[in-house]
Amino acid sequence: MRKKPWVDALLEHPPSFVLKDCSPLAQLTRSTYSSVHLEIGSGKGDYWIQMAAKHPNELWIGIEKDVKVAAVAIKKAQEAILPNQLFVVSDAQVCLPQFANGDVDVIHLNFSDPWPKKRTHKRRLSASTFIDQYKRILSDQGLIIMKTDNKELFEYSMVQFSQASLILEEMSVDFRREENDDVISEYEARFMSLNQPIYRCIWRKKSHG
Amino acid sequence: MRKKPWVDALLEHPPSFVLKDCSPLAQLTRSTYSSVHLEIGSGKGDYWIQMAAKHPNELWIGIEKDVKVAAVAIKKAQEAILPNQLFVVSDAQVCLPQFANGDVDVIHLNFSDPWPKKRTHKRRLSASTFIDQYKRILSDQGLIIMKTDNKELFEYSMVQFSQASLILEEMSVDFRREENDDVISEYEARFMSLNQPIYRCIWRKKSHG
Repeated sequence: MRKKPWVDALLEHPPSFVLKDCSPLAQLTRSTYSSVHLEIGSGKGDYWIQMAAKHPNELWIGIEKDVKVAAVAIKKAQEAILPNQLFVVSDAQVCLPQFANGDVDVIHLNFSDPWPKKRTHKRRLSASTFIDQYKRILSDQGLIIMKTDNKELFEYSMVQFSQASLILEEMSVDFRREENDDVISEYEARFMSLNQPIYRCIWRKKSHG
Repeated sequence: MRKKPWVDALLEHPPSFVLKDCSPLAQLTRSTYSSVHLEIGSGKGDYWIQMAAKHPNELWIGIEKDVKVAAVAIKKAQEAILPNQLFVVSDAQVCLPQFANGDVDVIHLNFSDPWPKKRTHKRRLSASTFIDQYKRILSDQGLIIMKTDNKELFEYSMVQFSQASLILEEMSVDFRREENDDVISEYEARFMSLNQPIYRCIWRKKSHG
């Protein structure tokens, strides 16, 4: 995507739901909402916007590091912004350490970059360094929900989450053929139209018992 | 399959590689072999026979509870029986408790009965009562390897193994499209010819570190 002139203008004076970094989030007053959701890699914001609208009692935070893509998400959200939405234009590697321990209830990883080459696997959002941060910022019964159309990324991530001692709560190898109330982004719809199965897993930080 | 007259005759005077129950296996002299493999639900024995032939240094034990199906496996194996093969016509529920702790290195579950109805899930070979027995009879670095063409059984089993604190070592949602040296049974070949993906997972009893 080529950078458009409005992007700089928008990001120079962003609307108030857009935060410069994740440091204010460390003091989240969690009492206002039933749960805190963090989507890492929100892309053009479809999922973040629709889920926030659907669940007004939940706080939805979106993070996107690609400035041009993030600007599209912000522009979209601006039209009908809700009080339970926050957005941060930042790299997860910079942003996650700014959260307080146990501050987040659900981390969402939707169609993350698969980084197919072996030497780039450490950049995957399910690499062990990221999982360590997720475990720190998640509440005790906190969840990581990952969806992807990428077989290799899914297989890799399953192993990574298990080896980090998370507990598998649910798995689907063809999520969209099951009934559920999850929203579908434009990005995801494209894969579905190609008849590509969508993989999903839910991992819990600690077991119930 | 209708019971044929030769079945009774064969099982009344079985060849010496066929054991009446699993109790002799509790005293396995493991030193003779590099590892002990146990296939639960060997069906007509294709996998058990081929893997034993391919890995003469490993002891391969097959268990099958269906008498008619087991008889087919025994008949097949009889033609070229190898010293590293044992077979037991028995129900896993009866047989597994007869193994000593840590006696088995790898448990193989190939295309197990999916028991699709919810109320029959407890009969699945990946139900928690079975997994408890597997953990007991497995050596510390022991593995459970499951292959299936059944999506629901696979998804269920992944959750069960994780919740039993096993560690995922490998997972594939399309195992036969990858290069590997696993043998293919007649039963499996049928699913492959229908272009049905084969799911596989490998779970370890304890993590390496």
